[in-house]
Amino acid sequence: MSQYCFGVDVGGTTIKLGLFNESGTVLDKWEIKTRTKNNGKGILPDVAETIKEKMEEKSITKEDVIGVGMGVPGPVDKKGIVYNCVNLGWGQFNVNETLSELLDMPVKCGNDANVAALGEMWKGGGQGYKNLVVVTLGTGVGGGIIVDGEILTGATGAGGEIGHIHIQDGELEPCGCGNYGCLEQYASATGIVRLAKRELDRTDKVTVLKKETVTAKDVWDAVKFGDEVAVEIVERFGKYLGKGLAAIAAVVNPEVFVIGGGVSKAGKVLIDYIQESYREYVFHGSRNAKFELATLENDAGIFGAAKLVLE
Amino acid sequence: MSQYCFGVDVGGTTIKLGLFNESGTVLDKWEIKTRTKNNGKGILPDVAETIKEKMEEKSITKEDVIGVGMGVPGPVDKKGIVYNCVNLGWGQFNVNETLSELLDMPVKCGNDANVAALGEMWKGGGQGYKNLVVVTLGTGVGGGIIVDGEILTGATGAGGEIGHIHIQDGELEPCGCGNYGCLEQYASATGIVRLAKRELDRTDKVTVLKKETVTAKDVWDAVKFGDEVAVEIVERFGKYLGKGLAAIAAVVNPEVFVIGGGVSKAGKVLIDYIQESYREYVFHGSRNAKFELATLENDAGIFGAAKLVLE
Repeated sequence: MSQYCFGVDVGGTTIKLGLFNESGTVLDKWEIKTRTKNNGKGILPDVAETIKEKMEEKSITKEDVIGVGMGVPGPVDKKGIVYNCVNLGWGQFNVNETLSELLDMPVKCGNDANVAALGEMWKGGGQGYKNLVVVTLGTGVGGGIIVDGEILTGATGAGGEIGHIHIQDGELEPCGCGNYGCLEQYASATGIVRLAKRELDRTDKVTVLKKETVTAKDVWDAVKFGDEVAVEIVERFGKYLGKGLAAIAAVVNPEVFVIGGGVSKAGKVLIDYIQESYREYVFHGSRNAKFELATLENDAGIFGAAKLVLE
Repeated sequence: MSQYCFGVDVGGTTIKLGLFNESGTVLDKWEIKTRTKNNGKGILPDVAETIKEKMEEKSITKEDVIGVGMGVPGPVDKKGIVYNCVNLGWGQFNVNETLSELLDMPVKCGNDANVAALGEMWKGGGQGYKNLVVVTLGTGVGGGIIVDGEILTGATGAGGEIGHIHIQDGELEPCGCGNYGCLEQYASATGIVRLAKRELDRTDKVTVLKKETVTAKDVWDAVKFGDEVAVEIVERFGKYLGKGLAAIAAVVNPEVFVIGGGVSKAGKVLIDYIQESYREYVFHGSRNAKFELATLENDAGIFGAAKLVLE
């Protein structure tokens, strides 16, 4: 009798795995390293190997397993075809089929940000909602959009790539994607550091941020102590992000924005700065969208991946 | 045996109706006036009345009718509840239930722009696609978004309100929605006229557009004759719209943009101006989205409405 599933979250340096029961309780969690050598050819065999080991350890047979869900860092279409996972060295191939052959089990794969969004809807900050935008503020700005309970994958798996909404004309530094003025350049952890540098270069005000290296966390900590320059920096951050989320709302009209990623550790104060700007720019039909903090942190990926096969 | 359905498109001045067979062939088309007096209380009884008359004329019994689909100008949720149809004088009530009681037939209602998008997918410029953004460039900028063949309604029926994406900081004139700098303020017929006025105020160049009143059509006609000022105006129009569509693509990653509405009568040249800017701002995963012209013109609404009940 099928009673277990695996949730896998493949990152550029580590692969997180979880063993779940049918009702979505996580029974075990572990990690392995991501071997990106040789265009990441070892990654799926490593995943298959560690899952088989876990099954042996727990005396789980193939018949007990519903399937394996997996999130990967790049666009994935509905068939499980990846097009370009730069961080893994992967080109174009069908991940579902490849891993399914190695394990002789059903496999369902999705983009990591989209899968994490599904996790937050299922067991995290988005519980009780069916129309969500999950925003991950980490090194970059990731997004996962859920419409009527389903991931919005898009035509080529690039749905929810909200970090690359053009938000600022006249930007002179390029974004990682090659464009100029993407949301990610201002609203990510690195974006906050960029905004801080620019503000510190032009201000004469006294601030605890005048030091060798400034991190996004330094800025938020300084905000808590009322540092005027830090407040100006996060106001600009909030302005950009609120404007970006208002644009998204004009397209998908969500019930809730769930904010996660490293930057979201700043807590509720973060939402205040985003919401002020959001309400300024948003179409009235989406003015009452809720804002929640994500709660699953680094586990959103394995939860969402498990949910992919439990659906 | 059920073999017919009705498609109804309720506008602020006229109500368009179509009688369709099961395979989507339109058998008859007609219009009635929209009675907006008394908060539009007469609108649904008028629709019921004219449908009953048509059934009598064609000797169609209630048992022959699959249902009535309808598009209305305002947000509509999945249950058929409208929240505020300003042009009709309607407040909040359930349109599906109300019209269904009057006719004793199944009724399914949606936002007019979304329903028109469904029509273009089914029988118009979007045939063969399942992930579309239909952009209607009329007095305003309307949008209808189709994901995997289904209308993206949104949490409160405000999905696809793309005319109200904030696209320009520092705008001093308000949009109809009350915000400042919405896409609709530059990329609609009235938006083109606004851009033209501003350009004509500041340029000394010779142009056929230096006259009492300028329409969007005048501008596009002048473009065809190589009028330099007209070209500058539509380049700005294209810049705004391309940037807006790139933002939408970062969210929903469509296969195709279908461009309709009065402004689209300018033809293929319109798409050239939009695409250039789109490609500059779009995330690479959506760079290859197609651009097509809508083909159903004013009939998109009744086709989409019929499709609502034939699904």
